[in-house]
Amino acid sequence: MKATRYEQVAERIIHLIQNGILKDGDKVPSIRQLSRELRVSVNTVKEAYWKLENLNFLTAVPQSGFYVNPPTTSAGSRAEPDPTLLDPQKVSLCRIYGSFQNNGQCSPEISLSIATLNPELWPTEKMGRFFQEAMRNQEFEAYNYIMSPGYGNLREQIARFSLACGLNLSPDELIITNGCHEAVFLALMVLCKPGDTVVLESPIYFNLLHLLEQLNLNIIELPSDRENGINLDTLRFVLENQPVKAMFSISNFNNPMGFVLSSMQKKKLVQLLAEFNVPLVEDDIYGDIAFQERPDVCKAYDLSGDVLLCSSFSKTIAPGLRVGWIAPGRHYDAVIKLKTLLNISTASVNQIAVAKFLKAGGYGRHLRNLSKILKTQIAALRACILTHFPRGTQVTNPRGGFLLWIELPAGVDTDIIYRNALKQNILFAPGRLFSMKDKYANCMRLNGGIWNQRVEKAIAHLGALAKDAL
Amino acid sequence: MKATRYEQVAERIIHLIQNGILKDGDKVPSIRQLSRELRVSVNTVKEAYWKLENLNFLTAVPQSGFYVNPPTTSAGSRAEPDPTLLDPQKVSLCRIYGSFQNNGQCSPEISLSIATLNPELWPTEKMGRFFQEAMRNQEFEAYNYIMSPGYGNLREQIARFSLACGLNLSPDELIITNGCHEAVFLALMVLCKPGDTVVLESPIYFNLLHLLEQLNLNIIELPSDRENGINLDTLRFVLENQPVKAMFSISNFNNPMGFVLSSMQKKKLVQLLAEFNVPLVEDDIYGDIAFQERPDVCKAYDLSGDVLLCSSFSKTIAPGLRVGWIAPGRHYDAVIKLKTLLNISTASVNQIAVAKFLKAGGYGRHLRNLSKILKTQIAALRACILTHFPRGTQVTNPRGGFLLWIELPAGVDTDIIYRNALKQNILFAPGRLFSMKDKYANCMRLNGGIWNQRVEKAIAHLGALAKDAL
Repeated sequence: MKATRYEQVAERIIHLIQNGILKDGDKVPSIRQLSRELRVSVNTVKEAYWKLENLNFLTAVPQSGFYVNPPTTSAGSRAEPDPTLLDPQKVSLCRIYGSFQNNGQCSPEISLSIATLNPELWPTEKMGRFFQEAMRNQEFEAYNYIMSPGYGNLREQIARFSLACGLNLSPDELIITNGCHEAVFLALMVLCKPGDTVVLESPIYFNLLHLLEQLNLNIIELPSDRENGINLDTLRFVLENQPVKAMFSISNFNNPMGFVLSSMQKKKLVQLLAEFNVPLVEDDIYGDIAFQERPDVCKAYDLSGDVLLCSSFSKTIAPGLRVGWIAPGRHYDAVIKLKTLLNISTASVNQIAVAKFLKAGGYGRHLRNLSKILKTQIAALRACILTHFPRGTQVTNPRGGFLLWIELPAGVDTDIIYRNALKQNILFAPGRLFSMKDKYANCMRLNGGIWNQRVEKAIAHLGALAKDAL
Repeated sequence: MKATRYEQVAERIIHLIQNGILKDGDKVPSIRQLSRELRVSVNTVKEAYWKLENLNFLTAVPQSGFYVNPPTTSAGSRAEPDPTLLDPQKVSLCRIYGSFQNNGQCSPEISLSIATLNPELWPTEKMGRFFQEAMRNQEFEAYNYIMSPGYGNLREQIARFSLACGLNLSPDELIITNGCHEAVFLALMVLCKPGDTVVLESPIYFNLLHLLEQLNLNIIELPSDRENGINLDTLRFVLENQPVKAMFSISNFNNPMGFVLSSMQKKKLVQLLAEFNVPLVEDDIYGDIAFQERPDVCKAYDLSGDVLLCSSFSKTIAPGLRVGWIAPGRHYDAVIKLKTLLNISTASVNQIAVAKFLKAGGYGRHLRNLSKILKTQIAALRACILTHFPRGTQVTNPRGGFLLWIELPAGVDTDIIYRNALKQNILFAPGRLFSMKDKYANCMRLNGGIWNQRVEKAIAHLGALAKDAL
């Protein structure tokens, strides 16, 4: 297949980098300059640079230009740059996803792999009492359908707590779901039809990639950095050049990268998407677990009703409840219809018990306590990793949530560590799970929701395996 | 648009009927005979006759031929026969579906519209105890994810009870869902992609029609009679001539028609579908509520793994639990993957509590007791309808479940009765909801799950409105 013009331009730049003519940190020629030099259009150069950014060769710095990346950050993909990588592509099943899912059971060592809290942090005593109250005093409601949009008192409480994230939701804007996953499923299914293209932050929570594959959607992965998320200039370029149908973002305590978009970034993101009429599916499942102030959400800047905010109580109360929610903006009618056709409604007694906890059970106090504990846990886990893992390992330092993203020195393959760790019953999420592009081979995500001596020992094991793999 | 050849043949027969040349009960010329007479192919005549059957002009009698129907049974659709009616068509929203859903709340008069039991029949005391036990003694399981396929003890119990319907399921063949609706959703989404064609019994449970629309599926509605369901010769004709991707059937105590397919019919249906490699989504949600013997299921005759059996405890324990299941045969892997991506799992404590009831709570006794009560209720409701409704009204006489299908004399429009009844806060499901073809205008479905004096009074009101509408 003949390379297109922008691919030729991109290959030229790669050639310059690989031959040491352009070095780490160098600014590459401006788009206009290269356009003149090579006698190609400005858009061709833009496309080439954007592609190189996605391949981790370049980084865009707003108001400045494109810079050459250090070779370490892209060892995996730089070996054989694939010119087709940037096109919207059909998501295909990651080869180790199967074994990852099948091993997802529950010892502390194993739960390093999934985002889950220490069960001791679940408020089970209180919840047990609220379940009992619901079944005794509201028998009819507790056993009957509570038709979608769901239990009124629960929606009221969620609306009340939404003030903390810069929103002023009405209960009438909310629909209760079986967890945040279902909320995202409903949003994507309402917004997109098979063959449509969705833009994502990369790396991204792996189940989302598989959901997109299941819905036969194409994806564009925009590289995000651990501090600031994606580059909005890159996003604009994509929106200008690709038929994007929706964007998905975990804007607070991103899974896996940990970043929080600043209020200004959130506002700009929402404005940019609105300019192109592209809805945003915002997953805020970790937003309530803030070590300092609770960050706001993109939806706080939503004027068009095109931000669909999704969350749940799986990370803050307990995952087995399966109680989540969506505020779908102007897509409310479509989402409530699909929810009804999907499973009519969410389990009733579960909704009532959560509503009781939010109303009278000290949920706010619980969140503050939980965040305090997790802050300490994450610091301990982080220190432990930095002690045991090889020199040059980088670990994110999130201000909320309970996930860490670890970047090992270039050349380490965490798939190999994964297979060896499994023999010792230690399970984590290897980096390749977080992209469909064979990226992040030297990365892994660890769950910091559980911290004890067994976890500490498991980290030491992983560190040793990582050193072996060097 | 020019009529196709088979449409021309069909119009010729309609002309003969409308001019009284072919009369009620007359046998029409055999397919071969007409093929010779009109010099068209045998298949053209077949297609024309099948279309006329679907339009309610003719009835196929196996091993005999096609007969002219009495004019009353098809007054609604006969007025303006639409030659496009028989093509697989895009399901479009029934115009009164919206108002029906929005009014679906809970007084006895209103609950004539949805298929729901008298809350007094829910075993709430036992279930409350089992919930409490689960949360006290199995705290970790009750609050954690119970990953799909779902709680092992529950799957074991469902497998044990499956013996009663002619099955010998293994727990490993089952996946727990949020109710039967979700089971059917998963099955259809796994089997079909947008644009595919699904065959249904007609009339059919209205939410299913809307689900098919949501999934962008085309439907073929096969007329079913109140005793025997669909005609298998007609089904064969459809399978021979249309690209059918799946069939959906409520084989026991059909919603709304009440029929039970005999074991022989079930076996033949499964064999016929297997011959064409067409999977069957079997909804057995009413199967456990049998006034006499518990009927078997189509899945009992499934040799290819292409029957996906769906059910739940919404009609037998309580709907608010949202606990159902699917036995997806050879589609197990695809269904469990989709279920995980949809909402990870079903609420844990709900699964454990139902498992406890099935294991030690006298679920079998509960079912026998429930069926006995419902048999009496349905008889009383039926007698009440026949007392108050106009002469010529026909009411189904089901041997299980708790739904009645009522056919009023030709010319009565139950949409008008619906609107008038609503003014008195009485809600039922008008016949047009059960087809996308503007059929069943003179029909309605009533819920027999609740029986008391208020319901009796509501039936008397409905009867008076029906007489007014004549």
